Amino acid sequence: MPADPELIAVARGDAPADLVLSNARVINVFTRDIEDNVNVVIKNGAIARIGDDTDAAHRIDVGGSYVGPGFIDAHMHVESTMMRPSEFVRLALPHGTTGVVFDPHEIANVCGIPGMRFLMDDARDLPMRIMFAASSCVPASHLETAGAALSADDLAPLFDDDRVVALAEMMNFPGVVHAFPDVLEKVRLGLEHRIVDGHCPGLRGDELQAYIAAGISSDHECTTADEAREKLRRGMQVYLREGSAARNIEALVSVVTAENAHRCCFCTDDRHPGDLRDEGHIDHAVRRAIACGLDPVTAIAMGSRHTAQHYNQRELGAVAPGMRADLVVFDDARAPSPRQVFVDGVLVAEDGVMTAPPRAADRAPDDAHLRNTVHLPDDFGAHRFRIESSNPTANIRVIGMNPHSLVTEHLVMPATRRDGELVTDPDRDLLKLAVIERHGKGGSIGLGFVTGFGFRDGALASTVGHDSHNLTVVGSNDIDMEKAARVLTKYGGGQCVVRGGKVLACLPLPLAGLLSDESAEALVEQQQQVLEKVRELGCPHHDPFMPLSFLPLSVIPTLKLSDQGLVDVNRFRIVTVETTED
Amino acid sequence: MPADPELIAVARGDAPADLVLSNARVINVFTRDIEDNVNVVIKNGAIARIGDDTDAAHRIDVGGSYVGPGFIDAHMHVESTMMRPSEFVRLALPHGTTGVVFDPHEIANVCGIPGMRFLMDDARDLPMRIMFAASSCVPASHLETAGAALSADDLAPLFDDDRVVALAEMMNFPGVVHAFPDVLEKVRLGLEHRIVDGHCPGLRGDELQAYIAAGISSDHECTTADEAREKLRRGMQVYLREGSAARNIEALVSVVTAENAHRCCFCTDDRHPGDLRDEGHIDHAVRRAIACGLDPVTAIAMGSRHTAQHYNQRELGAVAPGMRADLVVFDDARAPSPRQVFVDGVLVAEDGVMTAPPRAADRAPDDAHLRNTVHLPDDFGAHRFRIESSNPTANIRVIGMNPHSLVTEHLVMPATRRDGELVTDPDRDLLKLAVIERHGKGGSIGLGFVTGFGFRDGALASTVGHDSHNLTVVGSNDIDMEKAARVLTKYGGGQCVVRGGKVLACLPLPLAGLLSDESAEALVEQQQQVLEKVRELGCPHHDPFMPLSFLPLSVIPTLKLSDQGLVDVNRFRIVTVETTED
Repeated sequence: MPADPELIAVARGDAPADLVLSNARVINVFTRDIEDNVNVVIKNGAIARIGDDTDAAHRIDVGGSYVGPGFIDAHMHVESTMMRPSEFVRLALPHGTTGVVFDPHEIANVCGIPGMRFLMDDARDLPMRIMFAASSCVPASHLETAGAALSADDLAPLFDDDRVVALAEMMNFPGVVHAFPDVLEKVRLGLEHRIVDGHCPGLRGDELQAYIAAGISSDHECTTADEAREKLRRGMQVYLREGSAARNIEALVSVVTAENAHRCCFCTDDRHPGDLRDEGHIDHAVRRAIACGLDPVTAIAMGSRHTAQHYNQRELGAVAPGMRADLVVFDDARAPSPRQVFVDGVLVAEDGVMTAPPRAADRAPDDAHLRNTVHLPDDFGAHRFRIESSNPTANIRVIGMNPHSLVTEHLVMPATRRDGELVTDPDRDLLKLAVIERHGKGGSIGLGFVTGFGFRDGALASTVGHDSHNLTVVGSNDIDMEKAARVLTKYGGGQCVVRGGKVLACLPLPLAGLLSDESAEALVEQQQQVLEKVRELGCPHHDPFMPLSFLPLSVIPTLKLSDQGLVDVNRFRIVTVETTED
Repeated sequence: MPADPELIAVARGDAPADLVLSNARVINVFTRDIEDNVNVVIKNGAIARIGDDTDAAHRIDVGGSYVGPGFIDAHMHVESTMMRPSEFVRLALPHGTTGVVFDPHEIANVCGIPGMRFLMDDARDLPMRIMFAASSCVPASHLETAGAALSADDLAPLFDDDRVVALAEMMNFPGVVHAFPDVLEKVRLGLEHRIVDGHCPGLRGDELQAYIAAGISSDHECTTADEAREKLRRGMQVYLREGSAARNIEALVSVVTAENAHRCCFCTDDRHPGDLRDEGHIDHAVRRAIACGLDPVTAIAMGSRHTAQHYNQRELGAVAPGMRADLVVFDDARAPSPRQVFVDGVLVAEDGVMTAPPRAADRAPDDAHLRNTVHLPDDFGAHRFRIESSNPTANIRVIGMNPHSLVTEHLVMPATRRDGELVTDPDRDLLKLAVIERHGKGGSIGLGFVTGFGFRDGALASTVGHDSHNLTVVGSNDIDMEKAARVLTKYGGGQCVVRGGKVLACLPLPLAGLLSDESAEALVEQQQQVLEKVRELGCPHHDPFMPLSFLPLSVIPTLKLSDQGLVDVNRFRIVTVETTED
C-alpha cells in the first residue's frame, strides 16, 4: 500500500519491524557511496529506514557484508533462456535479479498477442518484479513470413496492464527515420502510455537524431564507445549490453562518467540457459564492468536504480526508505556475487539456490495454444531442398557465418554443381541452409549456402530462428536435413542433431517452438547433450545453434536467408543464389 | 504531435527547417559539456537536430553565443509575485523562464478549488510551459481560519489536467510522520496519479525517513549543507531555493557533486515583483550558484533538465532532438543572462522585454468570483483592537520579528498598560498586531504584540498573510489600524500605509486579496510607492510587508498570530498574550 501507516510507524521507531538486516554496509545509489555499520529496517515488504537497530520479528546479522538493491535487467527476451518465466526465476533470482523488463518479441512472432499474454500470465505470482515491454516489430520485416503481425491497435490493450512499462525496442529504425505512418503510430502509442525503447545498431549523425526526434529514448545496441557517447549526447539512455550473443561492456565501459552514469544501465538482451546458470545475469554484467575499471557502486547503481528511474519505477532499485525491500547481500564489492537475495523483504534465494516456494502447479497458465506450432509444407520431402542451377557459369552467394556475431558476410564463391543442381561441398565448408515457413502460412522454403559451421556430415535444425522463428536447417545432405526438420515437427519445436538419418540428440521446445516445458535443470542438461553431439559432428563451435538462429534475421547485415529466399540486407531485398556479380 | 513526421524529415535532412539558430555554442545537459560551432535546427516547435546548417524559413545567427535550455522553476507560488500568470510571464520570460511549476496554495486558501482553477485558466494560451501542483495543505493548520478546506476528494479532479504534475509540497510533515489518515489519503492521491512534493524544514533522522517512506520525493526547505546531504542520501530530489524570502543557495551549493547533480534542481518558492523584474528568476539562481562555485553547465542543467526529469516531462529541459524548442541565448557562461528566449521555437523575449503578443483580452478568464473576498466583522471598529489586561502584574508575549526570516522569536517582555488595557509602546518598538478573519467565517480577530517593525506612528495592513491570508494589521494606534483595515476592504484586498487617519499609499490586490488586476509594470510602480511611504513612516526595512505576511503562518516557529490568537508553534496551540511564565 502506498503511504503505508505501518511502514511509517516502523520508520519513526514506534513499532517493531518485520525484519532487520543488521551489521550491514549499505550501497547508496543516490550518493554513490557506502554506509558502514548500519541496519536495514523492513516492514510490509518495504524499507522503513536505514540506521540504528530496532525491535524486529526477524533479524539477520549480515556480518558486515554489503547490502545493495536487487539487480534489474533493462531489456531481455526471456525466450533466449528457453524457459518460461516461472523457471527463469529459479536460475535468475540466485544471481540477484529482482527485476526484469521482458520483451516477448520471439513468442509474439510465433503466437502473436496470445503468446505475449502467456508469458505475462506465467510471470504472475513469482518472487520477482517482472515487467514487460510491448513488442513493437512483429514481424521484423516484410522479407519473411512470421506467425503473427501486430499493429498499434493490436498492442494498445497491453498498456492496460501496469506491468507493461514501455513499447519495446523499435527495431525498424529505417521505418522511424523515414517516418512510415504505421511505425510512427506505434511510437505514438508508446509515448501516449509510457516510454519507447530503441534499437538502432550503428545509427549515427542526422539519422540517429531523426530517430531520437521521434521520441525514442534508449538504445542497447552500441558496440563502440564513440557510438555510445554520441547517443548519450543526443539524450538517449544507453543500456550497456552483456548477453550471451552480444557482449559489449568491455568496449563501452570507458564511456561512463560521474556526470552521465545515471543515463546508463545494463541489459542482457539474450541470455542462454547455461550462461544464465553458470556466469550469471546482471550480476555478471556488474562484475564485468567493475573488472573493466568501473567504480563498483556506480556499476551497481547502473544495474538497479538507473534502470528503475528510466522506466519510472519509483519504488525500485535503491536501499532507501519507501523502496521495496528487493535486496542482495554480498561480500566482495569488487565482484558482487549475491549470497542472499530478498524480494519484498522475503529471502527468496540463498547460496545459489532459489529458496522461495515454487508456484503451485495449478496456478500455471494453460499452454495448449502454444503447442503444435511447427507445420511442414504438404509436399515436404528431401526434394524440397534441391537448388537447380540456371546458369552453369555463375558463381553463388554464400552466407559467411561468424560464430561470435549477428552480422554475416556476403560472400561470392564458385559453385559446386552436380546434375544441374547446386550442391554442398564440405571440403570447402560449404553447407546448405534452408528456412522453412512453419506457421502454416504457405510453407515456402528459402534455400542457400553457408560457410562457417565446419562439420562435414549431418544436419542441425532449430525452430529458434530470429525473428519469425521459422524452421532453420543447415546440413551436408538433403536426407539428413529432411530428417532433422521432421523430428522437430514431431516435438512441436526444438533443436536437434542428425547424422546418417539418425537423430543423435534433440532438445524439445514444445511451447511455440521456443520454450521448454521442462525444469530449468532438465533443460540445461538436454542442451548440453545436444552440444556434445554437435562436437561429435565435428563442428568446432561451442554452440552453433546461436549463430544458426540469427541467419534468418533479415534486419541485421549482411546476407541472410528467410523463408522467402536470400536477403541482401543492405539493399533490403531478396536476391538469387546464383549471381554474375563479383 | 508526438513522433511528428515533419520534424523527423527535417532531422534527417530531407526538408527545410522553420528556424535555425546558427553559429551556436550549445549547452548539453546530458553530457554536461558544451558543443562549439553548431546549429540548432527547429521544426514545428521542436528541436530536430544539433549539427550542420540546413535550409530554413528563418535563420538567426547567434554569433557564437551560448544556446541552452530554457529555465524551469521547480516550485513557486505565483501569488508571491502578486501577478496573474498572464502578467507573470511578461516579467519572467525575459529572464529565460520557459517552464514553471505553480503551487496555487495561496489562492486556494482564500477561494478553494475555484481559485486554483482561475490560475489554471489564466495560464492557458501563454508562451510558457506553466505546470501546476495540487495544493496539499489547505488550510495549513487547525489554528487559523482559512477561506477553504480541501480534502483528497476535492483535489482528485485536478489530476485530470495534464498540466498538474504533482501533489504540491506536503507541509504537514508531522501529519505524515504520525500517519494521520486524511494526510496519507492525499499522499496516496498524489502517488496514484503523479509524484508528491515535500516540504520538511529541518526534518532529520528517523522522522525524515518516515516522511520519505510515505512516498514523498522532494524537499525545497534545506537551509544547511548537512540537511541537504542527508535528504539526498535518503533519496529525495533536493531543490535549492533562491527566492525573495528565503535564499539558500550559498549555504547549499557545496552539496552538489558530479554524482548527485541530477538529483538537484532550483526553485524560488516566493518571488516578489521587484525582485522578479530586477534580479531575475531561475536565471538569478543559476548565476548565484555559479558565483558560489558551481560548474556553469551543471547549474544550467539543474535549472532545466533535472527539474523536467523529476516531473517526468520527457520533452522539456534540454537542447536535443525531440525536445520542445524552449531555449535561451546568452553571452556569458559564467553569468547567464538571456538576451533571447524561445518557446516552441518562437522568439518570445528579447533584451529584457517579452516580444510575444499579449493574450487577447477576450481570452482572459472571468475573475468575478475572486473579487470582494475581504469581509470585516459586523461590529468592526477600533474598539475591536483593544486588549484588556486581566493580570496587572503579568508580562506579555511578544513576537520578535526578523525581517530576513520566516522564523520569529517568542519573547516575553514587561507590558505597558493604560486604563486596564495593554497598549503599544513605540519607545520600545512594541506595536500591536491584529489578524482579522476576512473570509466571512465568523470574523474572529487575533490580537498580540510585535517588535521589530521600528516605526513609531501609523499602521500597515495587508491581505497577504500566510497561509490563510486573513487581514493582517500592525500599528501604533487602533484608529490607524481600523482605517487601514477598512481601506483594504474597499479595494477587495491589498497592502496599505496609514498615518494620522490618512491613507499614505495603497497597493490594491482585488483578486482574492492576493493578485493585482493591473499590468506588471503598474503593479511594480504601485508597490514602490507603498514602500516609499513605509520609509516615510520610519520603518527601516526594505519591505516590511514580507515579514508581516509570515507573522500569521502558524506552521513555522516560533510565536505567530492567527485570527484565533497567539500561536505557540512549538507547542502547536493557542496561548494568551499575558503570561506569568518567563
